[in-house]
Amino acid sequence: MPKSALAFDLLAADGHARAGLIHTPHGQIPTPVFMPVGTQATVKAMSPRDLRDVGATIILGNTYHLYLRPGDERIARLGGLHAFMGWDGPILTDSGGYQVFSLAQRRKIDADGVTFRSHIDGSEHRFTPEKVVAIQENLGADLIVCLDECAPANDYDYNVQALARTHAWAQRCKAAKTRTDQALFGVVQGGVFPDLREQSARFLTDMGFDGYAIGGLSVGETKEQMHASLEVVTPILPADQPRYLMGVGTPGDLIECVARGVDMFDCVLPTRTARNGSALTRTGRINLRNARFADDADPIEPGCTCYACTHFSRAYVRHLTKANEILGHHLLTVHNLHLLLTIAREMREAVLEGHFQAYREAFWQTCGQPAVNLA
Amino acid sequence: MPKSALAFDLLAADGHARAGLIHTPHGQIPTPVFMPVGTQATVKAMSPRDLRDVGATIILGNTYHLYLRPGDERIARLGGLHAFMGWDGPILTDSGGYQVFSLAQRRKIDADGVTFRSHIDGSEHRFTPEKVVAIQENLGADLIVCLDECAPANDYDYNVQALARTHAWAQRCKAAKTRTDQALFGVVQGGVFPDLREQSARFLTDMGFDGYAIGGLSVGETKEQMHASLEVVTPILPADQPRYLMGVGTPGDLIECVARGVDMFDCVLPTRTARNGSALTRTGRINLRNARFADDADPIEPGCTCYACTHFSRAYVRHLTKANEILGHHLLTVHNLHLLLTIAREMREAVLEGHFQAYREAFWQTCGQPAVNLA
Repeated sequence: MPKSALAFDLLAADGHARAGLIHTPHGQIPTPVFMPVGTQATVKAMSPRDLRDVGATIILGNTYHLYLRPGDERIARLGGLHAFMGWDGPILTDSGGYQVFSLAQRRKIDADGVTFRSHIDGSEHRFTPEKVVAIQENLGADLIVCLDECAPANDYDYNVQALARTHAWAQRCKAAKTRTDQALFGVVQGGVFPDLREQSARFLTDMGFDGYAIGGLSVGETKEQMHASLEVVTPILPADQPRYLMGVGTPGDLIECVARGVDMFDCVLPTRTARNGSALTRTGRINLRNARFADDADPIEPGCTCYACTHFSRAYVRHLTKANEILGHHLLTVHNLHLLLTIAREMREAVLEGHFQAYREAFWQTCGQPAVNLA
Repeated sequence: MPKSALAFDLLAADGHARAGLIHTPHGQIPTPVFMPVGTQATVKAMSPRDLRDVGATIILGNTYHLYLRPGDERIARLGGLHAFMGWDGPILTDSGGYQVFSLAQRRKIDADGVTFRSHIDGSEHRFTPEKVVAIQENLGADLIVCLDECAPANDYDYNVQALARTHAWAQRCKAAKTRTDQALFGVVQGGVFPDLREQSARFLTDMGFDGYAIGGLSVGETKEQMHASLEVVTPILPADQPRYLMGVGTPGDLIECVARGVDMFDCVLPTRTARNGSALTRTGRINLRNARFADDADPIEPGCTCYACTHFSRAYVRHLTKANEILGHHLLTVHNLHLLLTIAREMREAVLEGHFQAYREAFWQTCGQPAVNLA
């Protein structure tokens, strides 16, 4: 694999929690970081300037979706994903594996790759490790991810087979990579099984990647199982490279997983719940469609400094969601992303200042819920 | 009627075209002006800061919609429409009459008012002139409008009856008004019939209002009929008060109606066409869903300075519209509103500098279409 453009400075650690700085061709990413999900070359209901305004430093694009529509070759012709979507900051593209296994139809997996039908028009397509790298090289993200298989978390025998494929595919992805300005992440799998997780972390670390994603979690297992997996995996991963937990999560998840050594997160939760009329807050989720907000002059979350909370009332946001107005989706998305991005920044400051544990305890006290495995 | 808060400075005229400045409690409105339509207390797909960014100086709210949801009394409790929707600039609310006659169900009109059923839940409601003024006083817009009846434009006998009601209701609205910080507009009706239009303009002018709306046009009549109506009406209206043509329109409509003495416009065209994937341009409308834009790296309208045109390609906007992404609606709305607001500003400058006719001719030359009744 050619030398990568990615560099990672580990600036401080506090327990297992870390504060760092990822350098990419499109700018720096302070970690811990939450990456808003831009599935179809747009973070839903947000413009690039809105994303800057809420504090986003990197966004995620979905390889599966962009390959199908508008097509990675078209995006390459139009100057790559950054130019296409007007976002000049860092971008990570996933491998498409998760969507193939969760969204595509009639998928058929073999040792060489996976054949599937588009969820849009039923057309047949095939992803191999080499194809997925080629697509991501066309898209041109700063951080790209190896094709992996996200297996059902509790099926041991299936996970053994899937892990063998994931590891073989990781080797092929690494061999297929040609661009020197993209950093490649391997994906640790292994379901809820500590022995498989350990095996995967060691195998990929021995191969050597620019960073390590942790997949197959937050897919239905318990919080305890998720935390136990992280506690096995992160001590094995190289300290001087970033760790990315895929598909997580809630404010509390971010804190508990940073406490277990994770640096990067993505999740559709803040954008998807926004479009369902719900706000994430430090004290839990609230649904603005609820009639109790009809005359509520308070902001979505009192004390929040986002555009939505500093300009509009719950009563107004409730009205917008009831009337199905786009601005309602937008304002709730602004708030939800702002909250997760703010919590990530706060955790970073806490680690840098050496009081992450106090921050973590204060969060759960505000939240009013017991932390899971806080010790 | 108490003395109104509205003052209008007629700064210049060039032919029948005028440049002016309306003073309201929430700021000044340079005219000619296009008012983006904020039906349900939001201009669809736009935040207040987006509206400022495209150059909006006043927006419109729909009394019918706001009365039904979230309710004018609720809005009053929450500080009025400006505070509720976070827009601190001038607002005009219409009378609700047009929506009752176009949107509500099972409407029954009588001399005293109109009974109708909500298009949302079928519940029964009644609008009288007094009720409509009370609703608009609850909403608290800077400019409010008398209840009128928008009759089928080509039915003479019906227009005679409707005009009698509209005039009687105008008198009752004027008498019912209690707030001194709101300006009241009468509505000239009369369909496509010059004698009725003249009668209406004289009747309302004799009564005396803060400004004059012209209703019942752009509802299916020909451009020639619309222009002929304006040519009858505007010379009768007081020169030192603003004239507002309701429900118009396209870039060309704005220019031709300013040429006939109109100062203010509103229309759902720029926002509605945006959500259908279409852009208004100086050379006509284009539908971004068209396959010919799939690889088009040009902006929506080359030369346009709006956020959408300075940051994104037609190919990207086409992708967003095909993928039904909210950002597509937003970017097209930004462009369409920016275009109409820019044309209104350009007309104002042309009038102030005394070359409106040259501006008008240049517009139609760029457009590539013959102007209607340009002389």
